Amino acid sequence: MLRFPEHQVAGHKAIEGKLGPLIDDYGNFYKPLQSKGRGSNEVACYKFFNSDPRVPNNISQRYIPNFHGTKVLNASDGSGLHPHLVLEDVVSCYSNPSVIDVKIGSRTWYPESSDAYVSKCLKKDRESSSITLGFRISGLKFVSCSLKENDSLSWQPDKEFLQNLSAEDVKLVLSKFVSCNFSSNDDAVSLRPDRAFVNEVFGGSNGILEQLLELKQWFEVQTIYHFYSSSVLMVCDRESVMNGKSSGGVVKLIDFAHVVDAKGSIDHNFLGGLCSLIKFISDILDSPLDYENNCIFNGNGTEDEQ
Amino acid sequence: MLRFPEHQVAGHKAIEGKLGPLIDDYGNFYKPLQSKGRGSNEVACYKFFNSDPRVPNNISQRYIPNFHGTKVLNASDGSGLHPHLVLEDVVSCYSNPSVIDVKIGSRTWYPESSDAYVSKCLKKDRESSSITLGFRISGLKFVSCSLKENDSLSWQPDKEFLQNLSAEDVKLVLSKFVSCNFSSNDDAVSLRPDRAFVNEVFGGSNGILEQLLELKQWFEVQTIYHFYSSSVLMVCDRESVMNGKSSGGVVKLIDFAHVVDAKGSIDHNFLGGLCSLIKFISDILDSPLDYENNCIFNGNGTEDEQ
Repeated sequence: MLRFPEHQVAGHKAIEGKLGPLIDDYGNFYKPLQSKGRGSNEVACYKFFNSDPRVPNNISQRYIPNFHGTKVLNASDGSGLHPHLVLEDVVSCYSNPSVIDVKIGSRTWYPESSDAYVSKCLKKDRESSSITLGFRISGLKFVSCSLKENDSLSWQPDKEFLQNLSAEDVKLVLSKFVSCNFSSNDDAVSLRPDRAFVNEVFGGSNGILEQLLELKQWFEVQTIYHFYSSSVLMVCDRESVMNGKSSGGVVKLIDFAHVVDAKGSIDHNFLGGLCSLIKFISDILDSPLDYENNCIFNGNGTEDEQ
Repeated sequence: MLRFPEHQVAGHKAIEGKLGPLIDDYGNFYKPLQSKGRGSNEVACYKFFNSDPRVPNNISQRYIPNFHGTKVLNASDGSGLHPHLVLEDVVSCYSNPSVIDVKIGSRTWYPESSDAYVSKCLKKDRESSSITLGFRISGLKFVSCSLKENDSLSWQPDKEFLQNLSAEDVKLVLSKFVSCNFSSNDDAVSLRPDRAFVNEVFGGSNGILEQLLELKQWFEVQTIYHFYSSSVLMVCDRESVMNGKSSGGVVKLIDFAHVVDAKGSIDHNFLGGLCSLIKFISDILDSPLDYENNCIFNGNGTEDEQ
């Protein structure tokens, strides 16, 4: 039985009769191939990551979702049969994952884009934080810690909230990603993040910061592909972290419909944005008691653990 | 006595009755303040670099030209008195410097730019290598080694040549910067670079690569300024290197008319472009015998020294 992915936070969604991805009970994520060659481009990318020796194992195995070919399925919009990529559902192993999708790069159009496509992308890049910060948060869903049975309290702000976040806003959102102190949407917006899991999720040798730094190291030298409009997906499961069942956070590189040949240079656009994201996360780790920035422990005792 | 700077390779030039910089015999470079607040913006930047403790000494002292205030002088265009920045003439200590000006960043407009300014810059960025490579070579002048008295053989290609260089072109130009085997403009274009000084100029603990890496380290963390349309100027003097009088190449960060407040994030645009330049220089150092890329020693015996 195929169903809508409840933890999908960005991209085309299979709701209200639209074409979007589906999941099954076996950890597969079925993503419809996009039109105008973008779908086949994404398939080619996944194949490349799966097989080309120029992609180091530490990158392809850890940061690229597993790819299991393509499959023709009944589309979610009821339009009939449609080819889908069969990918690993990267959140399937978590019961209550918190997810944040960060579209990397200040520019989402590529050198060969038509003027019309440039205008369309440029408008979005300027209206969001892409131009200012080098990335934009495309979507997020954070699940509260105080989770009772069948009581899924989560924070999933709408597009308007995420539109054009300032540096301070991003710091706050990323701090909330590693915090525990909310139990409703209102709390999530207003409460100062407690950063209860900052060290477990962002820090440590297996934490998100180290993973982003490993990706960065590759982007400093790889001259194979330029990744336009791709995202870094960050996932953590507060329950698992609390219970010691999870070692922290997970980073995946996703969305390859607009990946193009590098033509001999590094992907300076992606790398710059990635470094910007790294600086935010690194700052949050380095300054746990930042009153000014509204990022403060709320006296629940976790300060001592810093 | 003020005169035109003969080693200036980019920017507004004081030739044919235009407004441009002048130099004197005491190592000063007089740069006319630009209109529309850009001149005063540049003055403010130099003052900041000279005095603010947030700029590390290794950056301000090594990579920013010395600033000696402003001075009102007769403008080079004959328009009368005009305020000038008084800067260190960074090539004054060399007799025959080779100079290359690299405008860093794939984007030369800043977030608050007007639509008209965005269009104007975007056009230039797309028509040059800025969009593809993350930087563009704004100008260069390479002086040949086989230099006889009063016989200044140099290569200074026009704007058309430098327009929209590919990755391979840039590799070739940067290789020629550290080469010796030309004695005329024609030679400079056609000869395969011998890379005679690649290790002395690009390599080593004082070489250009290490200097760019030091700059990069600062750009990974600094959230003070974003540098739009600024350049990295690289200088070497083949004669001095040959005679052992110079330890290699020099890197300077110049042109601050379009530097703006960072507003809490790193300068991902500059950093990305800088990393791209670093990759090119690092590749040239790592692969001295690259037949395919037309970058090959031409059998003059220097191969053995690699």
